[in-house]
Amino acid sequence: MAASSSPQLSRWKCTVAYDGTQFSGWQSQPDANAVQDFIERRLAEVLKVKTGIQGSGRTDSGVHARAQVFHFDADWPHSPAKLLAALRVGLPPTLQVTTAKRVPASFHSRFSAKGKIYHYEIHHRGFADPFSHPFCWSMMRTLDIEAMRAAAARLVGKRDFRAYSAASGEERESTVRTLEALDVQVRGRRVRIVARGDGFLYKMVRSLVGALVDVGAGRLSPDDITAILATKQRTHRVVTAPPEGLFLVKVFY
Amino acid sequence: MAASSSPQLSRWKCTVAYDGTQFSGWQSQPDANAVQDFIERRLAEVLKVKTGIQGSGRTDSGVHARAQVFHFDADWPHSPAKLLAALRVGLPPTLQVTTAKRVPASFHSRFSAKGKIYHYEIHHRGFADPFSHPFCWSMMRTLDIEAMRAAAARLVGKRDFRAYSAASGEERESTVRTLEALDVQVRGRRVRIVARGDGFLYKMVRSLVGALVDVGAGRLSPDDITAILATKQRTHRVVTAPPEGLFLVKVFY
Repeated sequence: MAASSSPQLSRWKCTVAYDGTQFSGWQSQPDANAVQDFIERRLAEVLKVKTGIQGSGRTDSGVHARAQVFHFDADWPHSPAKLLAALRVGLPPTLQVTTAKRVPASFHSRFSAKGKIYHYEIHHRGFADPFSHPFCWSMMRTLDIEAMRAAAARLVGKRDFRAYSAASGEERESTVRTLEALDVQVRGRRVRIVARGDGFLYKMVRSLVGALVDVGAGRLSPDDITAILATKQRTHRVVTAPPEGLFLVKVFY
Repeated sequence: MAASSSPQLSRWKCTVAYDGTQFSGWQSQPDANAVQDFIERRLAEVLKVKTGIQGSGRTDSGVHARAQVFHFDADWPHSPAKLLAALRVGLPPTLQVTTAKRVPASFHSRFSAKGKIYHYEIHHRGFADPFSHPFCWSMMRTLDIEAMRAAAARLVGKRDFRAYSAASGEERESTVRTLEALDVQVRGRRVRIVARGDGFLYKMVRSLVGALVDVGAGRLSPDDITAILATKQRTHRVVTAPPEGLFLVKVFY
């Protein structure tokens, strides 16, 4: 068989955490400063062969990840622990590969994903301190949390979220997604919006958060939220929350 | 009187928090990237006159502050709240003036200080995540906390701390300081060393922490800590902990 002379490729699944302020997003970029660029450069050193990786999805420039997932195929005769150790060194401390394991060749980081959890961190009623500033949306105003929760309840479920995304109107792909949870959690001056769903459109979480914050600020009502959803068209009334508050927290398989 | 035609100068006391990774230390530098440089540039804009500030002490490049204190003299006819608001804008979010108040002209941020509290943050038994990495000393090894506490107890009191500082041997100034507390606090994988004293020599906290970590790692014993102290000479056996874990937390007056 031809395969007998080929290297013994296995499929590997890894998770990675990164501080999005340090990179040009997930997706490989001409400036070579994307998370994918760093990981692929390190993999080439470790595996002695150019190796592409596939992420569960892109994160935009400035967006963070606690557990982004990617896969690749490699001929690695040693243990997963040794691969993990090799991937840990040679990468900046703001980009940490946290798990590595062999998976069946049928596994695909994007197409096998059953859902994701994002957190969006807000600091209201004053500025976040210099140490948490890169990791939240900081605002002086006081948000009306109950109004935000009422609006969030209008969004949960299987819906066409085109109005809360940056999906282009010409795309043929479905813009229907199931938003399983959109919780507004409060601890002191921190507000965390937890979004769990079977998939998210481009800029969907940041659009939902932008709209909820406008409800919290009294610029939109819960009824507006429902009306905008029904238009299935992006409007200037929906602002996109800044990237620094957004964390990809978990990908389900 | 000559003073009657002069501006009405008041003395102002301010506190400021900053992420030390973003600046070239506290003290004004040729690269103009020090915390002092940023504040003095902003003051010149706000007060329409070049105004020097005096800090409670220098923090080295990479060292953070939750509440550094500085003073200056200014002719500001408006409220403290207005001055604070003016100082808040025009400064990077990683450098935040948090309080501003008029004080008697006898107040001096450095000479009136009665003591300081520093925190040193360590993450042991694994790497800190990318988001806390710039704000702690991260290490794989497991520290022996009880040994560190035993060693810390040897250091508390009024002592000549020259061996745990970078003070030059030729200085005439006293190197005797009173270390009122040196506590080793643990929460999960985080270790916080709290140092409270009437004053600290140059690089003293980072030298104490470097020695305590070497005790925690089994490279030094509590007896070594006492013996080194008694030499009153800096030795290569004392390493200086990296700046990123150190926070100036409070200055007492």
